[in-house]
Amino acid sequence: MGPKRRRVVILGSGFGGLAAAEALRGADLDITLIDRTNHHLFQPLLYQVATAALSPGDIAWPLRTIFRSQSNVRVVMGEVRAIDRAGRRVQVTDHPPIPYDVLIVAVGSRHAYFNRPDWEGYAPGLKTLADAVALRARMVLAFEQAERRAATSSGATPLTFVIVGGGPTGVELAGAMAEIGRNAMLPDFPFLQRQAVRILLVEAGSRVLSGFPPDLSAHAQSALESMGVTVLLNQRVREVGPKGVTLDGQFIETGNVIWAAGNRASPLLSSLQVPLDKDGRVFVRPDLTVPDDDWLFVIGDAAAVQDGQGHFLPGLAPVAMQEGRYVAAVLAAPTATGKRAAFRYVDRGTLATIGRAKAVAQFGSVHVSGFWAWMLWCTVHIFFLIGFRNRFRVVSEWIWYYLTFKPGARLLDQSHN
Amino acid sequence: MGPKRRRVVILGSGFGGLAAAEALRGADLDITLIDRTNHHLFQPLLYQVATAALSPGDIAWPLRTIFRSQSNVRVVMGEVRAIDRAGRRVQVTDHPPIPYDVLIVAVGSRHAYFNRPDWEGYAPGLKTLADAVALRARMVLAFEQAERRAATSSGATPLTFVIVGGGPTGVELAGAMAEIGRNAMLPDFPFLQRQAVRILLVEAGSRVLSGFPPDLSAHAQSALESMGVTVLLNQRVREVGPKGVTLDGQFIETGNVIWAAGNRASPLLSSLQVPLDKDGRVFVRPDLTVPDDDWLFVIGDAAAVQDGQGHFLPGLAPVAMQEGRYVAAVLAAPTATGKRAAFRYVDRGTLATIGRAKAVAQFGSVHVSGFWAWMLWCTVHIFFLIGFRNRFRVVSEWIWYYLTFKPGARLLDQSHN
Repeated sequence: MGPKRRRVVILGSGFGGLAAAEALRGADLDITLIDRTNHHLFQPLLYQVATAALSPGDIAWPLRTIFRSQSNVRVVMGEVRAIDRAGRRVQVTDHPPIPYDVLIVAVGSRHAYFNRPDWEGYAPGLKTLADAVALRARMVLAFEQAERRAATSSGATPLTFVIVGGGPTGVELAGAMAEIGRNAMLPDFPFLQRQAVRILLVEAGSRVLSGFPPDLSAHAQSALESMGVTVLLNQRVREVGPKGVTLDGQFIETGNVIWAAGNRASPLLSSLQVPLDKDGRVFVRPDLTVPDDDWLFVIGDAAAVQDGQGHFLPGLAPVAMQEGRYVAAVLAAPTATGKRAAFRYVDRGTLATIGRAKAVAQFGSVHVSGFWAWMLWCTVHIFFLIGFRNRFRVVSEWIWYYLTFKPGARLLDQSHN
Repeated sequence: MGPKRRRVVILGSGFGGLAAAEALRGADLDITLIDRTNHHLFQPLLYQVATAALSPGDIAWPLRTIFRSQSNVRVVMGEVRAIDRAGRRVQVTDHPPIPYDVLIVAVGSRHAYFNRPDWEGYAPGLKTLADAVALRARMVLAFEQAERRAATSSGATPLTFVIVGGGPTGVELAGAMAEIGRNAMLPDFPFLQRQAVRILLVEAGSRVLSGFPPDLSAHAQSALESMGVTVLLNQRVREVGPKGVTLDGQFIETGNVIWAAGNRASPLLSSLQVPLDKDGRVFVRPDLTVPDDDWLFVIGDAAAVQDGQGHFLPGLAPVAMQEGRYVAAVLAAPTATGKRAAFRYVDRGTLATIGRAKAVAQFGSVHVSGFWAWMLWCTVHIFFLIGFRNRFRVVSEWIWYYLTFKPGARLLDQSHN
């Protein structure tokens, strides 16, 4: 036992929290990583689990395995109830309070329902493995029920999937559902007509992928349409219920609405008692700390961080990871606060995939689309996947799927009627 | 439309029902396969999903995909409520009655709790993917909670797993839990002592694997003990509750009891109104039909079938598959009932695995144990796995696991506290 080491507590094992913890390997610190699940989730591929192209095990990795060889990290699986700033400790359900000298808040965000939480039951979102597995079950079940109706009744009702939100998640979901629903699953349901399966993507703005330049948005939209997805722009969701979803102009009858619109940062952040933006994110200083504590950092989707031009950084994995590494660097070299260099996000480009051999990519002024953007997307995602094993499995899954068009994990793990 | 074809309805997509349907490929019949799930499950490897060595997708395969290219089979996913013998039709929840000319009942069995259904909540069994996923979650969670206790309190309580039933499932589970729990998981829980993890196998009889010859039972027991499993023989379970399990001589404190003792055939069989044996199985005639209907077959775990010596056949996959193929042959060549040759089970040997490079095998008078029995076990199981894809994945999983001792799928797909 040397002198007491600084206690660093990290809340959340997403890209930000994980990057911070890993970047502190070897540091003379006493790190506690707290997450409500026992795994790190590679969220960018979650939609592929939801559409049964991948298995949960392919995109998630147990935290304890990740940090098995990093002796300065202790993993705690638990639900953080509140942050006790006065006592400098974290309240965890069924666990003694966990004291900290340094706190890194990387608790991410959940979907936002425009103050209509009652919609969530009819329009679940996609943030966790549980979300993805539930969504997959709903999709498979919807096909089974439509097949049953088509086989036993004369008038077959259409099978409609409505995806709300034209951002990367919505676009990726719509593309994957079009491919898997129409190409992979439909042949297994002899009574279902191809045109009976409808996939609608609803976007409130004037274009999909609004984070990308207009030409790539246009490309993404036409790619989706070529896959049989109906893209509805400038359509706000007015109501969601058991029978379907009401847009500005129309009512769409469906039992399958998926929410990919808007995020709201974790409610836990309110216990910090610092100013939050309209999405519930914490306004942080250039060194990612809260205004009144040099050793309380907020990163990732939980933080509202401005870039050099005063724009707020998007909620993307690379942003969170760079923020995590920045905080780790600050802790590794504890200079006086005044001397801390401000965090600078280095934009290495953004990617979104639409479907098999269809993607868009932006690198500054360079815009790429189609097959090569997709290859790039695959490469980047495989590269960032944690652990050889997952890479190996995801690659083999993708190759298998690319060659055969047969997703493997299309299972309901219990009876549904 | 030619003349009306005979309607064959198959209840259950286990080994028996699936073998019958597949053996009828090309037959001029109108086949309906009904199952409450949408997949065929390779049950012999279910314990590996439960112990996180494999993912659900590795051992299950969607029925619609299996029969995609077999045009005389229609798949219905639904819960069979009753068999209406008078009306010669099957009642399915949320579905019009399904009429049959020929009925093949292959509904399998569930665990038997010796008329103590209240035990099931404390001692779940292992029959479905849902069972396996739930059991896996309980195991991982038990480790997390034990680690939490060990890390935060002084007196660490032991982490005890009790497996009830020394048959193949119980032995395989105990072996897998010993390997994965002690070798793969323990290193991830720094506060847990090795000896704090206890795995007990409770058997009411005088030896494990009683279906095997005594020398192989002895080998299996010593192999289990060498892996750190405590084998308790001649111990009947008297009570199971939230605090633990009471045996003849002792009370074992644990929240982790797994039931692998005894089966009871599906309650659905009572709607057949024919004599059942003590385990709820149907006494069938030599051609596997019920006494009063030449076109109502019962196969697999649902049937009590006698061999030439008057012994009842065990509830094993090979038995069910041979019975399914026998019925298919009868239907393909519809001779007068009197002329039907009786079903004969060809015993090609039995296998049980205990752990990595540990198994026992019997082929008539030939007894094999150890590494070569295990290699044989792997080969046979891979061979019988449905579809190249699953074989490919399971093999890669096993190789990975054999080399690294790191099971991959050790995930909790939602938060637990």
